[in-house]
Amino acid sequence: MNRRRRVYEGKGKILYEGPEPGTLIQFFKDDAGTEPGIAGEVIDGKGVLNNRISEYVFSHLNAIGIPTHFIRRLNMREQLVREVEMIPLAVTVRNIAAGSLSRRLGIEEGVPLPRSIVEFSLKSDELDNPLVTEEHIAAFGWASPPELDDMTTLAIRINDFLSGLFVGAGMQLVDFRIECGRFFEGDMMRIILAGEISPDSCRVLDLRTHQRLDRETDASGTVISAHSEIARRLGIMNENEPARAAGPVLVK
Amino acid sequence: MNRRRRVYEGKGKILYEGPEPGTLIQFFKDDAGTEPGIAGEVIDGKGVLNNRISEYVFSHLNAIGIPTHFIRRLNMREQLVREVEMIPLAVTVRNIAAGSLSRRLGIEEGVPLPRSIVEFSLKSDELDNPLVTEEHIAAFGWASPPELDDMTTLAIRINDFLSGLFVGAGMQLVDFRIECGRFFEGDMMRIILAGEISPDSCRVLDLRTHQRLDRETDASGTVISAHSEIARRLGIMNENEPARAAGPVLVK
Repeated sequence: MNRRRRVYEGKGKILYEGPEPGTLIQFFKDDAGTEPGIAGEVIDGKGVLNNRISEYVFSHLNAIGIPTHFIRRLNMREQLVREVEMIPLAVTVRNIAAGSLSRRLGIEEGVPLPRSIVEFSLKSDELDNPLVTEEHIAAFGWASPPELDDMTTLAIRINDFLSGLFVGAGMQLVDFRIECGRFFEGDMMRIILAGEISPDSCRVLDLRTHQRLDRETDASGTVISAHSEIARRLGIMNENEPARAAGPVLVK
Repeated sequence: MNRRRRVYEGKGKILYEGPEPGTLIQFFKDDAGTEPGIAGEVIDGKGVLNNRISEYVFSHLNAIGIPTHFIRRLNMREQLVREVEMIPLAVTVRNIAAGSLSRRLGIEEGVPLPRSIVEFSLKSDELDNPLVTEEHIAAFGWASPPELDDMTTLAIRINDFLSGLFVGAGMQLVDFRIECGRFFEGDMMRIILAGEISPDSCRVLDLRTHQRLDRETDASGTVISAHSEIARRLGIMNENEPARAAGPVLVK
């Protein structure tokens, strides 16, 4: 287990070589990501929750025909995933003004957008993941126009599914960020969803109070409870019965 | 003359009501603009040079069938222009990495871009004219998709003309920024070039030394000489004969 090859390490995840060619093991760390929220922080148990929430969302996306890299969860912190060639862009879908959009365009946080907005940003922590346009992407060859179309279609379908999922659980999806990769199958290449969908990459409001439920909510102490609250509302784990939720279900 | 109605005042220009309906008088101030360069500065004679350079460029653009708001120069600081409904976006065409593109995407200044890049930014000094994507523009209704196409086509044609013009005068066009407006003629609406094209809205290099020729070049003292140098190279005024250049040619 300790000798396996580390393929990639990011803020919230480590990728190891998988048991078979074309597979990887995705390990969820407790480190907090950059956006939205506070960087560099470690939150006990966050990785476990994100692994569960991401498994839950990706399984459902697979089931409705949205291709993802997710194969199955292996244990509390690990998933078996398909190996893809990552596209160096993050795709953000926004339904309500927040964060960088509010700051950059001077639109008050919480204002519903006239329509959902899909943004691409260059994945670069040093450059603070700058917003890029289709012109930049085409000029620098980060993705081809058909790949951008596929990513946009994927992002919009995921927005539809997630919006429904969250409303059904008494929450409202403000925005979320995904990453995509090129999955090669013989001569075929498909753009599929990779990475994770978790409270680290979403902004979520309570449907009634409009209070933030993801990890920007408050001081460090409330972050993990926000993750648990989202998991609880999605019916993934019952906060009142941690022993049962952490029981046999969690072990492969 | 002093009683005429001021329609708009920006960093570098004032627009007054024109002598006939559908016309405006565009007055060139000596204030330095924001990008590229240092804001808030006043440079004696800059407005006169920009008026001449912009007249020169706009006349040639009109002549090759690129529609502009320019009708004719009235005097040293003023032009008669068509009244348009300004689109709240600036269009930047970039041929070589510089300024905000270099800062945002981590690309060294002076590196030729793989292809020309067209960028849109929201005209807002308070927000520092943020880059926007077609998604933002469509969602907030700042321009329609056909209008964006027209602006892009206009910008690329102007880039072709200006690139040739500058090379012909021993200079290289790094990037430039334009503004467009909706010009109504009966039932017809056309997107036309408005504002100005001057050293305030261009970055220009010497073709041989690759030294900057526009106003970012050096300390405040060199800015006006950079404006004159560009004007001189374009054959608009001869630096060695200021009396002749400022003579009858300048008065309508």
